[in-house]
Amino acid sequence: MIKPHKLVVIGLGHVGSYVLADAMKTELFGEIVAIDADVAVAHGEALDQFQATGVHSMASISVRAGGYEECADADVIIVAAGPSMVSGEGEEKPDRASLAPHNAKVIREVMTGITAHTREAIIILITNPLDSMVYVAENEFDYPAGKIFGTGTMLDSARLRRIVADRAGVSPLSVQGYMMGEHGLSAFPVLSHVTIAGMSLEEFGLPMDPEDVATAVVDAAYEVFNHKGWTNAGVAQSAIAMARAVLLDERIILPACTTLRGEYGLHDVALSVPTLIGAGGALQRYCPTLNEWERAALERSAAAIKETTAKIAPQPDDYRR
Amino acid sequence: MIKPHKLVVIGLGHVGSYVLADAMKTELFGEIVAIDADVAVAHGEALDQFQATGVHSMASISVRAGGYEECADADVIIVAAGPSMVSGEGEEKPDRASLAPHNAKVIREVMTGITAHTREAIIILITNPLDSMVYVAENEFDYPAGKIFGTGTMLDSARLRRIVADRAGVSPLSVQGYMMGEHGLSAFPVLSHVTIAGMSLEEFGLPMDPEDVATAVVDAAYEVFNHKGWTNAGVAQSAIAMARAVLLDERIILPACTTLRGEYGLHDVALSVPTLIGAGGALQRYCPTLNEWERAALERSAAAIKETTAKIAPQPDDYRR
Amino acid sequence: MIKPHKLVVIGLGHVGSYVLADAMKTELFGEIVAIDADVAVAHGEALDQFQATGVHSMASISVRAGGYEECADADVIIVAAGPSMVSGEGEEKPDRASLAPHNAKVIREVMTGITAHTREAIIILITNPLDSMVYVAENEFDYPAGKIFGTGTMLDSARLRRIVADRAGVSPLSVQGYMMGEHGLSAFPVLSHVTIAGMSLEEFGLPMDPEDVATAVVDAAYEVFNHKGWTNAGVAQSAIAMARAVLLDERIILPACTTLRGEYGLHDVALSVPTLIGAGGALQRYCPTLNEWERAALERSAAAIKETTAKIAPQPDDYRR
Amino acid sequence: MIKPHKLVVIGLGHVGSYVLADAMKTELFGEIVAIDADVAVAHGEALDQFQATGVHSMASISVRAGGYEECADADVIIVAAGPSMVSGEGEEKPDRASLAPHNAKVIREVMTGITAHTREAIIILITNPLDSMVYVAENEFDYPAGKIFGTGTMLDSARLRRIVADRAGVSPLSVQGYMMGEHGLSAFPVLSHVTIAGMSLEEFGLPMDPEDVATAVVDAAYEVFNHKGWTNAGVAQSAIAMARAVLLDERIILPACTTLRGEYGLHDVALSVPTLIGAGGALQRYCPTLNEWERAALERSAAAIKETTAKIAPQPDDYRR
Repeated sequence: MIKPHKLVVIGLGHVGSYVLADAMKTELFGEIVAIDADVAVAHGEALDQFQATGVHSMASISVRAGGYEECADADVIIVAAGPSMVSGEGEEKPDRASLAPHNAKVIREVMTGITAHTREAIIILITNPLDSMVYVAENEFDYPAGKIFGTGTMLDSARLRRIVADRAGVSPLSVQGYMMGEHGLSAFPVLSHVTIAGMSLEEFGLPMDPEDVATAVVDAAYEVFNHKGWTNAGVAQSAIAMARAVLLDERIILPACTTLRGEYGLHDVALSVPTLIGAGGALQRYCPTLNEWERAALERSAAAIKETTAKIAPQPDDYRR
Repeated sequence: MIKPHKLVVIGLGHVGSYVLADAMKTELFGEIVAIDADVAVAHGEALDQFQATGVHSMASISVRAGGYEECADADVIIVAAGPSMVSGEGEEKPDRASLAPHNAKVIREVMTGITAHTREAIIILITNPLDSMVYVAENEFDYPAGKIFGTGTMLDSARLRRIVADRAGVSPLSVQGYMMGEHGLSAFPVLSHVTIAGMSLEEFGLPMDPEDVATAVVDAAYEVFNHKGWTNAGVAQSAIAMARAVLLDERIILPACTTLRGEYGLHDVALSVPTLIGAGGALQRYCPTLNEWERAALERSAAAIKETTAKIAPQPDDYRR
Repeated sequence: MIKPHKLVVIGLGHVGSYVLADAMKTELFGEIVAIDADVAVAHGEALDQFQATGVHSMASISVRAGGYEECADADVIIVAAGPSMVSGEGEEKPDRASLAPHNAKVIREVMTGITAHTREAIIILITNPLDSMVYVAENEFDYPAGKIFGTGTMLDSARLRRIVADRAGVSPLSVQGYMMGEHGLSAFPVLSHVTIAGMSLEEFGLPMDPEDVATAVVDAAYEVFNHKGWTNAGVAQSAIAMARAVLLDERIILPACTTLRGEYGLHDVALSVPTLIGAGGALQRYCPTLNEWERAALERSAAAIKETTAKIAPQPDDYRR
Repeated sequence: MIKPHKLVVIGLGHVGSYVLADAMKTELFGEIVAIDADVAVAHGEALDQFQATGVHSMASISVRAGGYEECADADVIIVAAGPSMVSGEGEEKPDRASLAPHNAKVIREVMTGITAHTREAIIILITNPLDSMVYVAENEFDYPAGKIFGTGTMLDSARLRRIVADRAGVSPLSVQGYMMGEHGLSAFPVLSHVTIAGMSLEEFGLPMDPEDVATAVVDAAYEVFNHKGWTNAGVAQSAIAMARAVLLDERIILPACTTLRGEYGLHDVALSVPTLIGAGGALQRYCPTLNEWERAALERSAAAIKETTAKIAPQPDDYRR
């Protein structure tokens, strides 16, 4: 019997529920399972989507709540577990890094749950602070190389393209470009490699200052955050686009987050560089030549991530049960 | 210049935000505007979706927050304004009718806002208690006949098909059937007209008791409600399916809510019967022959709706400003 | 590594080329292979579609020509091999049955090719005369039960729904109904089980004569055939809809063609009855209660198919090489 | 009443029939009309697609054959009229230019037909030799500026991206680049502006020779042509992608063909440069800085087009009837 492609979504909060909703609109998965520490929420979200399949315009996809045993035959696992930042708790621009201690614990539990059942599935991480979470998940669980990666700067890059597109008066589909580094405050635009219909910003007549752009991208995130209370639409779409690249073996180059193995001289830090995504997961990292500003920005971003990651280094009793 | 089809979503809460998210995944609209009494939320939701268009898999749709003046050239307006029920406030099965006094005020404000700018757009109402809200919107604002209707029992019908499909072991795509009456506690299944691949329930070997089914459908709603806290996936998809029927002039028969004009001897009450939906909106109502139980259920449902609607009859100063 | 779902299309003529083109627009398959006795045509069709994936709106699907060894890991195989009828060769309403001797040979070659490499894939047959071809493929090659079926009266049923929909002034999405029996001249409408929004034709006020409808459906086919020269759009879409039902395990009931095993007292004949389609292929046949006219039409249709099938019974040297 | 978006396809041969088939799979149009000098073919193609809407997976789109009066309220008109090259007529690499005299006559008839009824619709031309046909259509009929353009080097560019993608081992979605100039033998790759994930070919470690690439792109076309007999999949998808850009007002920059007005010092010649496509049609042309080879190639291509176009200059009695 043919095995329909199976998605497991872990964590059904603001982000995970959008991942689930978006996945239902594709033809990529015939089976979707929702897992959450709050079993009621997982059941409620899955059942809500399941009932929606009774609307005539929906495909008949199987969707339900379940436990980690559902990972055993999953093709893709998207992890949005752990609290995300929610506004109204004081700061205007809270740092995702503040979530690190709590979410490191969450990710260790999630990875323990997953690895009890599979080392085959492609795991796409969304949980923040993303880069540190990827580092933990990729390096503490002996999961096969390339099969774990994070949404990284997909969303930061979408915001960058939106900003460049708006200034140029064109669609973001005509803007090629990405942010690198941390998914967060130290992400930086690689303006040296941004093009509009193949033209550099200078050639297009739209020179930009990288500091200004970096600030604009971060501000774009907080503008949503402070108005809506959280952000979820873009990152959910990013995760689904990555899942599509995996399931169709598209081999698209996307700014995914993985642990570097000497790229730019960096080790022991997970951050986003252009990465080839296909059926095998994260297949290859590319290192575009950075200019001086970008190189410095990369160093700063790597340092910031390392600082956060250091705080959540595994302790002797992390895995004692 | 060609005018891209324009959607206005009014009310960006749990339901409206899903309507917006679902609309972004279709190719139906080139322009979407979000309106909410809380301007910050409308802006945040629109901006979150706008930034998501920077992901390469999304079409370049224009989406932004705005005011009622944006309705002037809208093709479709979906109204999800007003609080919906949220669990954890005491009752296990709170009645949507309890929202009537507050939401009647909301709908009167919304319709005042809309009609200040257009009587051309097709308006699809979702706000609960739906039937009373449709009655107010359709009868107090001199909006052209057929151009306002509610999602009605689309969602109740999706749940009915899901239940029948599960018991039969088939896809809901192979189940034809609908609930009629109130979108809410008194909705009733028209089992006399439910078919599985054209076979009646009896012929299929799956006889059902209408009371049991009615209860099961209501329970299905509250099961989501009490686990997730609210329901939104199915009704958002229903509204989008109806918008598609309008924009492509599909002429699909769907259980939409409109004010009856003598059907089944009923007047002055809005409730759901099979209704032809096309570019002109709600074009025709059909009256399937009901059996005795169904006929009685219709009377009960109409009475329940009338009772709720009576409580929100317009008062002398409702429209004084 | 995740295995993208793989489609093999065998036979790239008028129908197969449309199947290929339609498959490219879904997200169901990451890998598609075209096989044709005319290797140049298979290569040309695949390459044309492959180049089209360079357009930004297309997903990056792998598509190429190949040999039967490509069936080894296929999930779905759609067979449109063998000549179909082309107009301008004399008759106004040529019978698909006339293709039987030639296409029986083609199907035996194709099935020999497939079964040399797999008995796992779901095979969807389109080649005419469809019912006889299904009989040959299903009964001469020891392929696992349920894993082969034909598009059957999917297309005849689409035409039926279109005709009923037009007379009723509604979308075919609101018409439930199907043709049974042969895919061809003796197909018959099961008007006793046709409904419009759940209402019988009589209740809807649209009584129809089954003979007239049967003729109208056949005429609809020949109207396309005699104007365009062949028909392909509807049957290609039918095959893709069936493939979707398989890949997503939708469990939809569709009028597929399989060999009956006693249904309606019929044996040793392949024809279309409502059939449950899911990941395992054709999972179950349903036997709606037929009225007298329908019962007689079924007998006639079965007899006609048997007559055609008898003419292509395997001869001693059919499989000698 | 809302007006569903309306597409008119003129010319239902190999290309036009694929345009029609592809358009049916989008949600862009609610109404599609096929026009062909061979009325039977137009009717047959439209009816075939209309019957396909009876398959449950299709939206209920209205599609029919008609005359030029159908252009009156069309939003988009796609013109694929006139014979295209078909293989097996002698040459291995026949020049599209040889079709010029015949198709100039066709385009003049088509434009006469269209302009008798509208100057509002956006017209997308596909007929070859494309550039000369655009010149005729844009300059002899006083159609509003920007509202006519050709698919230009969309297809040549798709082939370019496919070739670069294959050599780089990545998806064409990660390759930005385009051909400029003629749609045909003298089209040239603008390698100076080709990027893979923002990296130039040199930086990516994949330097290419422009002559080799130009030849490879032309060969790619003829490889399809000589195997399949014609090419249609890519250009049909290109036309639909352009129609989407118009209907959703996407403002994408695509290599469309329009008459230059001084760009690169060129006048009185229609050819492809990066062009902004939105609801108003072709809104703006961009002139990327060309290197010496590219500049020379542009001159050669412009000269080749001018030579072809000169041969079909309007004669005194071209419009006498």
